[in-house]
Amino acid sequence: MKLYQSSASPNSRRVRIFLAEKGISMPLVPVDLGAKEQFSDAYAAINPRRVVPVLVLDDGTAIGEVPVILRYLEEVFPEPPLFGATPQARARAAMWERRVELEGFAAAMEAVRNAVPGLKSRAIAGPHDYEQIPALVERSRQRVRNFYSDFDARLTDVPFIAGEEFSVADITAVVTVDFAAKAAGLPIPDEHRALKRWYDKVSARASMGA
Amino acid sequence: MKLYQSSASPNSRRVRIFLAEKGISMPLVPVDLGAKEQFSDAYAAINPRRVVPVLVLDDGTAIGEVPVILRYLEEVFPEPPLFGATPQARARAAMWERRVELEGFAAAMEAVRNAVPGLKSRAIAGPHDYEQIPALVERSRQRVRNFYSDFDARLTDVPFIAGEEFSVADITAVVTVDFAAKAAGLPIPDEHRALKRWYDKVSARASMGA
Repeated sequence: MKLYQSSASPNSRRVRIFLAEKGISMPLVPVDLGAKEQFSDAYAAINPRRVVPVLVLDDGTAIGEVPVILRYLEEVFPEPPLFGATPQARARAAMWERRVELEGFAAAMEAVRNAVPGLKSRAIAGPHDYEQIPALVERSRQRVRNFYSDFDARLTDVPFIAGEEFSVADITAVVTVDFAAKAAGLPIPDEHRALKRWYDKVSARASMGA
Repeated sequence: MKLYQSSASPNSRRVRIFLAEKGISMPLVPVDLGAKEQFSDAYAAINPRRVVPVLVLDDGTAIGEVPVILRYLEEVFPEPPLFGATPQARARAAMWERRVELEGFAAAMEAVRNAVPGLKSRAIAGPHDYEQIPALVERSRQRVRNFYSDFDARLTDVPFIAGEEFSVADITAVVTVDFAAKAAGLPIPDEHRALKRWYDKVSARASMGA
């Protein structure tokens, strides 16, 4: 098993942190996004979607899509559980992971991809070119602010995103905060004390350096 | 267990078809989207995201997000498998289901929500209001066309979206085609013969009337 990924890719970081939490090591195959290596024929043969990361199994099966990669790893390396130990816990963790992804991560990504000059005709990752839509930038930034506000309220009630235990949802949320702060200039606002407290605690885990 | 849902909601239909394929029956609790019942305090207590569908377990746990609901149902009602029988098969089905969702379903939804007069400040479902962005409509329509073209190519090689077996990915794809045709005026173009052949075969299943 090996992971095609990029150190510059926040989606790749979601998987690297997950692996570190599990204590799994596997070969990391770098894909140079700056050199557009994801558009090479060699990489398209591995992932026709032309995005990173992709997990390639020993029989050559290529698994794309981060939440799918993480759930597969959870199935084959169940300890320590990062989704939870029962179907119900797994549903709760997967639900919160997805909400973080759609409301926070995807919004921050949309804000960046529609604004950065170097991605002019690449507003959406994947095999097709799409022009940037400037009006999306401010709407996406507002979505990130709403994400911060909503999850600050949630973390006033529970210690972790999915509830009582650290889970895959916290991983996606830390990656979202770091990406939004660094690439979109949207750090957690000071008034969101519960969210900040959660972030300070969770981002101190050794895995987060991955 | 019961499902809060709407007969007018394509996301609800994904779950209804899945239940029909499994042969599971459970109470369907209608949520009247036309009367904005999803914004009522009673419904917000069930799902603070204010969208349908939501699966409510007997202990009151509310599970939202369609792919999460479907995977939970697969865990507790494994037969017949609609994701596959091994971790690898489940990863393949979940990956393809997600690609259909992000590239097809979400694109069609974005095209409709940014165009329909009745959704003027409701361009994104959920608890927050967002104004429509007219420039998104044509881009989203182009994404649906690209989705049709990409999946026509795929279905030239394999009989079902995820490969050799009918799966959850086919369910999301049929719902996407029906929604794109009806709500966005984007039926499968005649030249996409493999996609049409797949659609005619799969949409004839009894479950698709659900």
